[in-house]
Amino acid sequence: MNIKGLQEKIIQKKSPVVVGLDPRLDRIPRSYKNDKSISEALFSFNKDIIDGIYDIAPAVKLQIAFYEKYGLEGLKAYVESKKYAQSKGLFVIGDIKRGDIGSTSKAYSNGHLGHAVYGDEIVDDFEVDNVTVNPYLGEDCIKEFIEDIKIYDKSIFVLVKTSNPSSKQIQDISKDGQTIYERVAGLVSDMNKEFSGTYGPIGAVVGATYPEEMVALRKQMPKAYFLVPGYGAQGGKADDVVRAFNADGLGAIVNSSRGIIFNYEKLESTVKEGAREAVLEMNKAINDALSSANKEYWD
Amino acid sequence: MNIKGLQEKIIQKKSPVVVGLDPRLDRIPRSYKNDKSISEALFSFNKDIIDGIYDIAPAVKLQIAFYEKYGLEGLKAYVESKKYAQSKGLFVIGDIKRGDIGSTSKAYSNGHLGHAVYGDEIVDDFEVDNVTVNPYLGEDCIKEFIEDIKIYDKSIFVLVKTSNPSSKQIQDISKDGQTIYERVAGLVSDMNKEFSGTYGPIGAVVGATYPEEMVALRKQMPKAYFLVPGYGAQGGKADDVVRAFNADGLGAIVNSSRGIIFNYEKLESTVKEGAREAVLEMNKAINDALSSANKEYWD
Repeated sequence: MNIKGLQEKIIQKKSPVVVGLDPRLDRIPRSYKNDKSISEALFSFNKDIIDGIYDIAPAVKLQIAFYEKYGLEGLKAYVESKKYAQSKGLFVIGDIKRGDIGSTSKAYSNGHLGHAVYGDEIVDDFEVDNVTVNPYLGEDCIKEFIEDIKIYDKSIFVLVKTSNPSSKQIQDISKDGQTIYERVAGLVSDMNKEFSGTYGPIGAVVGATYPEEMVALRKQMPKAYFLVPGYGAQGGKADDVVRAFNADGLGAIVNSSRGIIFNYEKLESTVKEGAREAVLEMNKAINDALSSANKEYWD
Repeated sequence: MNIKGLQEKIIQKKSPVVVGLDPRLDRIPRSYKNDKSISEALFSFNKDIIDGIYDIAPAVKLQIAFYEKYGLEGLKAYVESKKYAQSKGLFVIGDIKRGDIGSTSKAYSNGHLGHAVYGDEIVDDFEVDNVTVNPYLGEDCIKEFIEDIKIYDKSIFVLVKTSNPSSKQIQDISKDGQTIYERVAGLVSDMNKEFSGTYGPIGAVVGATYPEEMVALRKQMPKAYFLVPGYGAQGGKADDVVRAFNADGLGAIVNSSRGIIFNYEKLESTVKEGAREAVLEMNKAINDALSSANKEYWD
């Protein structure tokens, strides 16, 4: 699914919410684990989350670190979960934050946005609709992903301003009135120019925890979809994330992981019901905030 | 194996060479592929390389992208290759370039420097001696790896100045006379301070393709081991990489991937012999350059 497909899902479901599938075995109910392998436990938990939210959210994001932690069994659950999410019509983001020199980035890009070929065999275990990309190595790295965006009609989110406290150490360094994250934003904006349509396939990760910076970044990258992490558990609120959207009420998706997938703990409900309730609440909070938002953000 | 163990191997084998196990199926001889699965093909190729070099090189580096490209089968070969390298007494570097917000970096670190526990099961598929870390998210990210360095007696290499052409776009931005890569070098230097010994466990990636920058970085991070990529295929020469070493002739390891593992093509030899020849030649070139190096680098 391309970025236009994502947008259709957002409009159809009236939801900009991304459900972060970041399972942690110590927070998964015992019933998912009894006599089950690691991949069965992780996948069965994710399956219930997906069943609870697929008709009210447009996208899921899998943080691959939580699968890699559990080795090959963990990654088997990553593969099964993304396939199940795809079968339910969801836009699937692989939060892999990869980035390397050109020839190496190409291998990552082939594996995660496309596929590899071996004799008659096509290997697409990790193929998703979109991946996150780390820009520390500069545009050599990002260009390889753009080649595959064109071949496979996919999209990426480049890390611009991340949600964590120490993001400022590197990203906020300013030279000649321009921070590092604004330079990366400039690359994103430039790279979108060759693509037609209101929105291009090169998106930006901009943390909900930095609402001031978001206003300027929104103006700097008008064609970029924003992936906004940091909502909920990390402190970002609906009023903050509103600034990630364009005046058309589009152009951003907001991720919550722990606040959705572990909501069953707070509600003392099933995993599925907990996730559904959290998404419904988040949809309402963001849509309400968008309706009443001060228009000054977009002037 | 910790950084001290690596150093003992370097001294014992009189070699600072890291063999980059970055296999590409299209450059592996047909005999490795006939009727073989992807993981068998990749592993059997790597096994011959390791058999050819384990007594004359201290370390191998696996670029995980070239395995991820081939999905779960590819990563199975990653796991088997690193286990085999460990069984041969080699220091194993996972070139994973991971980096994320704190709780996510912790998951990467657990998986790659340590292990996960599930019931009675210990999952250590990806456990290696050392991994590379991307600093774009700041020290939150690196600190999680340092926790595991202490628990498991391991080490990391933080990307400081990478070998690719566009590394300058972000890394060379200078504010108040200090570039981004020098800021990262400052973090590395500070983080090593709490560790005793001549060398600490926080190393730095500094590309062979930037010899001028290397001289200053060597002075800025006296306690850091340098991992120097970019030798050979990317253009770095023995006279360039000499600058990565301290006056004691230690403190750096130099990686070559394509120049070693595909040397059989040039020599029209077996894979094993080609790799061995390339390492012997590289050992000699670097040791000769070190012997005759202009001492001005270290004054």
